[in-house]
Amino acid sequence: METENTLRRLKTVEGHLRGVIRMVEEDAYCIDVIRQIQAIEAALNKVSSQILENHLNSCVITAIQGSDRKERERVLKEITEVFEMSTKV
Amino acid sequence: METENTLRRLKTVEGHLRGVIRMVEEDAYCIDVIRQIQAIEAALNKVSSQILENHLNSCVITAIQGSDRKERERVLKEITEVFEMSTKV
Amino acid sequence: METENTLRRLKTVEGHLRGVIRMVEEDAYCIDVIRQIQAIEAALNKVSSQILENHLNSCVITAIQGSDRKERERVLKEITEVFEMSTKV
Amino acid sequence: METENTLRRLKTVEGHLRGVIRMVEEDAYCIDVIRQIQAIEAALNKVSSQILENHLNSCVITAIQGSDRKERERVLKEITEVFEMSTKV
Repeated sequence: METENTLRRLKTVEGHLRGVIRMVEEDAYCIDVIRQIQAIEAALNKVSSQILENHLNSCVITAIQGSDRKERERVLKEITEVFEMSTKV
Repeated sequence: METENTLRRLKTVEGHLRGVIRMVEEDAYCIDVIRQIQAIEAALNKVSSQILENHLNSCVITAIQGSDRKERERVLKEITEVFEMSTKV
Repeated sequence: METENTLRRLKTVEGHLRGVIRMVEEDAYCIDVIRQIQAIEAALNKVSSQILENHLNSCVITAIQGSDRKERERVLKEITEVFEMSTKV
Repeated sequence: METENTLRRLKTVEGHLRGVIRMVEEDAYCIDVIRQIQAIEAALNKVSSQILENHLNSCVITAIQGSDRKERERVLKEITEVFEMSTKV
């Protein structure tokens, strides 16, 4: 169900990106192209947040309630990493 | 020439995005999907910077050296706007 | 210990910010001021990541291993929220 | 005038940052601290945009209307650079 939702959003982004490629082919105004690229990035941010939410409510809960300490640390470390990267893109 | 370069980069991003869609279809690990989406965003940022650079060296120079004050103001205002938006996506 | 580290980093940022205020008072070159502000933001991102890491390894583990489902949901929801906000600032 | 405005905003950010330091000293909830840091970053982004706007309407116009080609190129290159950096912080 959540995968369906993610896929639907990503395919919308794909359509949006193809529209931007067409804009560039037809020599659209630079600033308009940049604005569309920024809209795509905002949509991608939304998808990432949604994927993270699902991840927290499944794998992360399982790992933290599990008995494997290494696995728990790994899963938590990944979250810090994607958070840190999200401040850079 | 620069349009060619922009197009090439955007088509690379399109291929990358299709790869991410496939990952989701094949139930890839959430964090790996998020990381790939972040890589796409970094690539899109790069494209935007490049388009802005071309824009500054063409339209912006023309507008600022031209005699139409309204046009000059419009062109400069747009740059502030895309800069401000870039801090939000 | 981790609080000490966070405090030290935040006080360094405070000193950096005071330096930027002085630059503006002394009419420094605009672009240099913007670059310093961007450096401050990068440092603040680093602090946030560190605080999140500590949070995940304490409160989040406690909440997820605890028996209060509401509390668990609340804690996970907050992480998605700060992640989503981090893509906007 | 615009410098006054920039200074006022930066001093507000300084007060905000001192508030965050106090929060950490008083062991405030991690997520609340992260949210306040994100609010500071949003305020800093606003200051940067304002400084850039002033810069475009003064130095950049002067450089582009001037006869020094090197200077013109330098000024435009800087704008692309701060734009590119703004996508990373």
